[in-house]
Amino acid sequence: MAVLVKTNRRVTLAAHPVGFPKDSDFAFDEVEVGSPGPGEVLVRILWISVDPYQRSRMSTVRSYAKGLEVGDVITSQSVGEVVESQDGRYEPGDLVVGQLGWQEYAVARAGSVRRVPEVLDPPTLALHVVGATGMTAYFGLLDVGRPKPGDTVVVSGAAGAVGQVVGQIAKLSGCRTIGIAGGPDKCTDCRLYGYDVALDYKDQGFRDALKAACTAGVDVYFDNVGGEMSTAVHRRLNVGARIVICGQISQYNLERPEPTFHPGVLIVYRARMEGFLINDYAHRFNEAALRLAGWVAEGKLTWREDVTDGLENAPAAFMGMLRGENRGKALVKVADRG
Amino acid sequence: MAVLVKTNRRVTLAAHPVGFPKDSDFAFDEVEVGSPGPGEVLVRILWISVDPYQRSRMSTVRSYAKGLEVGDVITSQSVGEVVESQDGRYEPGDLVVGQLGWQEYAVARAGSVRRVPEVLDPPTLALHVVGATGMTAYFGLLDVGRPKPGDTVVVSGAAGAVGQVVGQIAKLSGCRTIGIAGGPDKCTDCRLYGYDVALDYKDQGFRDALKAACTAGVDVYFDNVGGEMSTAVHRRLNVGARIVICGQISQYNLERPEPTFHPGVLIVYRARMEGFLINDYAHRFNEAALRLAGWVAEGKLTWREDVTDGLENAPAAFMGMLRGENRGKALVKVADRG
Repeated sequence: MAVLVKTNRRVTLAAHPVGFPKDSDFAFDEVEVGSPGPGEVLVRILWISVDPYQRSRMSTVRSYAKGLEVGDVITSQSVGEVVESQDGRYEPGDLVVGQLGWQEYAVARAGSVRRVPEVLDPPTLALHVVGATGMTAYFGLLDVGRPKPGDTVVVSGAAGAVGQVVGQIAKLSGCRTIGIAGGPDKCTDCRLYGYDVALDYKDQGFRDALKAACTAGVDVYFDNVGGEMSTAVHRRLNVGARIVICGQISQYNLERPEPTFHPGVLIVYRARMEGFLINDYAHRFNEAALRLAGWVAEGKLTWREDVTDGLENAPAAFMGMLRGENRGKALVKVADRG
Repeated sequence: MAVLVKTNRRVTLAAHPVGFPKDSDFAFDEVEVGSPGPGEVLVRILWISVDPYQRSRMSTVRSYAKGLEVGDVITSQSVGEVVESQDGRYEPGDLVVGQLGWQEYAVARAGSVRRVPEVLDPPTLALHVVGATGMTAYFGLLDVGRPKPGDTVVVSGAAGAVGQVVGQIAKLSGCRTIGIAGGPDKCTDCRLYGYDVALDYKDQGFRDALKAACTAGVDVYFDNVGGEMSTAVHRRLNVGARIVICGQISQYNLERPEPTFHPGVLIVYRARMEGFLINDYAHRFNEAALRLAGWVAEGKLTWREDVTDGLENAPAAFMGMLRGENRGKALVKVADRG
């Protein structure tokens, strides 16, 4: 019956945002739902993901991935159900996750989506803890940060989608964990996410509190934020520290971001600062998903979702996330399962 | 006879330099030559080393090593001959190298100096190619930069004491080598030091020339300089690039150094930026010295020295080096061998 639906509502880029995005940078349109060709599936999208990296995709500045052109559907990981399949691997009703965008329907190559196992409850976990943000935490902390038991791990954006998983994996790795988040509510959440200490960067006493919390120094700094907050953490590094550059959300909406870092700091502490992208770990996604799902099943990994209802509210959810208003992983619910 | 000498001329810190050092930041004094106690040697200093890191030691800003106090002898690696020994390992006439400072005589623990083998010709090699700057090049390039055959290696300060060795080790490692130096003379020297291409950062066309030289991108950037020049190199990085932070000489004399780097660059290129100090490789000094001396013996490593005559000219040699006036490793000759 789903194939009878004729129109696909989409959220597209109306203009490349200058500075902080605004409503008029987004447009809505309706197009005819496409038909899957051989090896393709038609997916009816149920949940879409809202993430900081999408801001970079909307920019005209060169980055690691091709940017969006005006008129393009906003890219995102989305979870949906197959409504028509021209590939033997899927049949109608199967749940899949993939780069399906902010829209109601997507035609995708069957090889470009992954199955969401029915045991995964809720299936939205495929968009965070067992999906892109969980894997970002997993590879970024374990492969780039390489924490040792007893290390002090500091995480900025600690209550965000990635940070909530980093804290728990760091704790599972035997580390002391310090989370930095904005506001008392998020700091309260940090305690759920494996953080021994939660620090509110909006608090006047932040720098003193950081100093007091880091008397043993910082061995791993997992940085989602950048800017002045990170400079404060860099002052507390131990010799041999690792700084994982996962994101720099404080910089994404600046019209002219200024440099924020002195490379000479890395000599003083013989430290390593390294960036990464989970795309480079595609050959290990199964390993990560299995371990993350295993921790969920054992009750060792918890999470919080911040769900906005309705595709039409995706831009508002996105802008709220950039302002730090979400509490937990930001998602938009597009439709109920059929 | 040398033990009859009564006075030791020394160069000391008269004031912590503010911005670029000036003559009045240095003082000269004469003190009585000390007598070695058990396990110590008295060394008559022949050559002293002049290096950028000494500027950091003169600063009051916290760094990896304790800074100099006013009145302290300027620290340096120096080569001298033992004139009196209270340790079985050394006897008068032996050449040694160690942290002996800018002065005519030093009393040192025998375990804190290393023998300069008589086969090392000239013995000043113990202050550069087979000494601290050569080992800095060795560990920084091979251990931190980890070049692979075919990689493009870019070096700033390419004609300096460290850079002249980095280019040659990179070439021995099968890499394509691009040296950045200040002025046509140093660029000419770069050709001696294993650089396939030499670029003059003082030239108006530097950025275009860099772009043209780096069509295959940059895999390893060995950075002695920092600042805007480095920003230009960062634009040419390949995915997976390694940025070795050896020094940041462009920043050492700024009263208020501003941040120069966007950590987000490391995400775009999934790159690693890492600082190091050779002190951390003390357990491998023998390995490095043997390999470096071996390359010298085989004629695979060449060098250039820039020798200033007379201890009284050490401050001028130091300031000239900071201005980039030296051509090759900056040394001061204090005395002839007895």
